[in-house]
Amino acid sequence: MYGLIGQMKAAPGKRDELIAILSAGTEAMPGCLSYIVAKDATDADALWITEVWTDQDSHAGSLKLPSVQAAIAKARPIIAGFGHRFETVPVGGVGLGKA
Amino acid sequence: MYGLIGQMKAAPGKRDELIAILSAGTEAMPGCLSYIVAKDATDADALWITEVWTDQDSHAGSLKLPSVQAAIAKARPIIAGFGHRFETVPVGGVGLGKA
Repeated sequence: MYGLIGQMKAAPGKRDELIAILSAGTEAMPGCLSYIVAKDATDADALWITEVWTDQDSHAGSLKLPSVQAAIAKARPIIAGFGHRFETVPVGGVGLGKA
Repeated sequence: MYGLIGQMKAAPGKRDELIAILSAGTEAMPGCLSYIVAKDATDADALWITEVWTDQDSHAGSLKLPSVQAAIAKARPIIAGFGHRFETVPVGGVGLGKA
């Protein structure tokens, strides 16, 4: 499995809008076992995306999906920047979906 | 919802053992929507736990479960320390189980 833990900063006041864009259409990503969008509890403009994929190729492939490319284009103007980013190798647990 | 993203460091060479302890018995935690254990991709002794709970009380309650207390006791000798820790407010996505 391949995992990503990433922090993103929205333009001021735009976090909810950015979350809505990032959350839409995530159901149809092949190889995606988990993709959770969360608000940062202490930074009002920050959010986190934690992802688990069957493998790194699935993640790379998702970035080429028309739905994902459209979401990226829509989100770009309200992304102020990126924060922490960690790559992981998930091994198990609760809440891993089926690919 | 209540979320935690936490990094933990195992004693040298003990990561797999620590992961096994942390992964066991996680199926029976009330209010747990996601609990994924992952190896850090760059630090051979580090691991990550990403958690989603229905609320903060569920997380606090889990720490009192006999199975979790037993796991903590078993894990403690091979935990070298803790790294990053972020609290989140998950809003949705793929891979959230039922409480």
